[in-house]
Amino acid sequence: MSEAALPAEFSLIARHFRPLAGEGSLDLSDDAALLVPPAGRTLVISADAMVAGVHFLPDDPPDLVARKLLRTNLSDLAAMGARPLAYLLTVSAPKSTPDDWFAGFAGGLAHDQAAFGLRLLGGDTTSTPGPVSLSVTILGTVLPGAEIRRSGARPGDGIWVSGTIGDGALGLLAATGRIDDPGGFLADRYRLPQPRVGLAVSGVATACMDVSDGLVQDLGHLCRASGVAAELHARLLPLSDAARRHMPGQLALCLTGGDDYELLMAVPPAQEPRLRAQAMAQRVPVTRVGRFLAGTPHVKVFGNDGAPMRLDRSGWSHFA
Amino acid sequence: MSEAALPAEFSLIARHFRPLAGEGSLDLSDDAALLVPPAGRTLVISADAMVAGVHFLPDDPPDLVARKLLRTNLSDLAAMGARPLAYLLTVSAPKSTPDDWFAGFAGGLAHDQAAFGLRLLGGDTTSTPGPVSLSVTILGTVLPGAEIRRSGARPGDGIWVSGTIGDGALGLLAATGRIDDPGGFLADRYRLPQPRVGLAVSGVATACMDVSDGLVQDLGHLCRASGVAAELHARLLPLSDAARRHMPGQLALCLTGGDDYELLMAVPPAQEPRLRAQAMAQRVPVTRVGRFLAGTPHVKVFGNDGAPMRLDRSGWSHFA
Repeated sequence: MSEAALPAEFSLIARHFRPLAGEGSLDLSDDAALLVPPAGRTLVISADAMVAGVHFLPDDPPDLVARKLLRTNLSDLAAMGARPLAYLLTVSAPKSTPDDWFAGFAGGLAHDQAAFGLRLLGGDTTSTPGPVSLSVTILGTVLPGAEIRRSGARPGDGIWVSGTIGDGALGLLAATGRIDDPGGFLADRYRLPQPRVGLAVSGVATACMDVSDGLVQDLGHLCRASGVAAELHARLLPLSDAARRHMPGQLALCLTGGDDYELLMAVPPAQEPRLRAQAMAQRVPVTRVGRFLAGTPHVKVFGNDGAPMRLDRSGWSHFA
Repeated sequence: MSEAALPAEFSLIARHFRPLAGEGSLDLSDDAALLVPPAGRTLVISADAMVAGVHFLPDDPPDLVARKLLRTNLSDLAAMGARPLAYLLTVSAPKSTPDDWFAGFAGGLAHDQAAFGLRLLGGDTTSTPGPVSLSVTILGTVLPGAEIRRSGARPGDGIWVSGTIGDGALGLLAATGRIDDPGGFLADRYRLPQPRVGLAVSGVATACMDVSDGLVQDLGHLCRASGVAAELHARLLPLSDAARRHMPGQLALCLTGGDDYELLMAVPPAQEPRLRAQAMAQRVPVTRVGRFLAGTPHVKVFGNDGAPMRLDRSGWSHFA
């Protein structure tokens, strides 16, 4: 006879993750979740993985790891102009992971679920002999046809970015003690990106993506998708005060380092007033950093001196 | 000036995964995918992670790893009575992973996508300093209210399982050279489960789940969800010929080992003819292995001699 006591894996899920589960999750107690799609809207879905030692530091506080995991996914929804809805989560952690780590991790999820209007639908918790490996699949919605793709940029559109660029890449250097970061502003920006949900608006931005792998590289992706070329001016790059202290030495890193999770948008000049109004409503600065033009997809970067700038790499690649 | 050449990560995605991408995936070239939900149906969503050395053997052929990944997720849809629709995938692999591995992996996905009517919607490919870590989020659909939950079993319902039980757990022993497996049947069953999509039918099964962590433990989950007790008779357990060669020594392992990906169903006696007809149409054997009864949720297991059987554990837990 076997009493139906909960094995440790399931009591861990019940303790930490069940309180996060929302409508349709069936309390994380069934084989799958149910989702009645919101009427008259298209679902927007994205999945991202994060690995300790690659996407975050192994000793980063677990609540911030959880929030960064949600926020990098929220940034993908933001880039499509979508409204957040729900998410599924997989957590693979070493058997020795203390319960406190899970408690902190779940606390971070709870915080950002509430902040961004998400609910947990389902997922999986497993052991791993390797580093903590996480994945989130996020679901959002848009009105049919209102999604903003990467492919709509046209010659003459301005290149716009939200927030400041380069803090994430500098923040990784700061968090690992390789550059000075009084007050910890840069490290905080690395650990806790600000997804720009609600900023990109259909009809204002003709194309949009989030900057995750480095501005120059991501701009290249957008150029390829839209069939346009781009001129980017480093002197226009919006830099935080903390980043400015590391100029001009770290300018190339800011242009190519990634981990920004800001939006990169193509905006026709006629739409600039609407962009500025939307940015003000969202309390997010937006800055024009260049323009799209006709031509073979490529990115031309001009340095602070106005001369073409040579970069050793355009951004981050997992498989060099 | 930076030419917009594709970094290795993106050319890898383009080469191996883009050919798998279906409607709404935006060619895996945007921030997220779009899904217009099928009219009049509820979405069923589940996410599972698989880690090399935990859920599969590090040197398992990559096409079988891919197919097992899809099939364990398909098994969750099968358990809800859902029809497969689409999936998202995250792959975290060591930087040294050869291109051949990705080619084989994508080939396995292609095979089972076609076999089960799935399309790839999106995902993420990253590096990891640890073992290959995979996740799939799968989407299916059911008619509203037709999903089969774990909570519907009633006293008097029969306990039914599909296929044969224990081959997966024995197959892991066989694949690692710990038991004899002439012809490799058991190892094959470990590496390539058969999700029973289409078998569980609303109105026939009152409750259903898939057997992934061990029959006794999973039956305990179903008992808790339904508020019933269960009597399981080991002598009724459907065993493959290959498994039968390892009886009675490995009976306890078959009852608790997991990796079966068969369906566990509660079926009222009056519905048995419909279950048998459906099983015949699907060409899947089904076997009654016990019955649910009123009482505190627990599982009583009777051995081949009819006496209560004592098991050291009820199933698999990632965090002991």
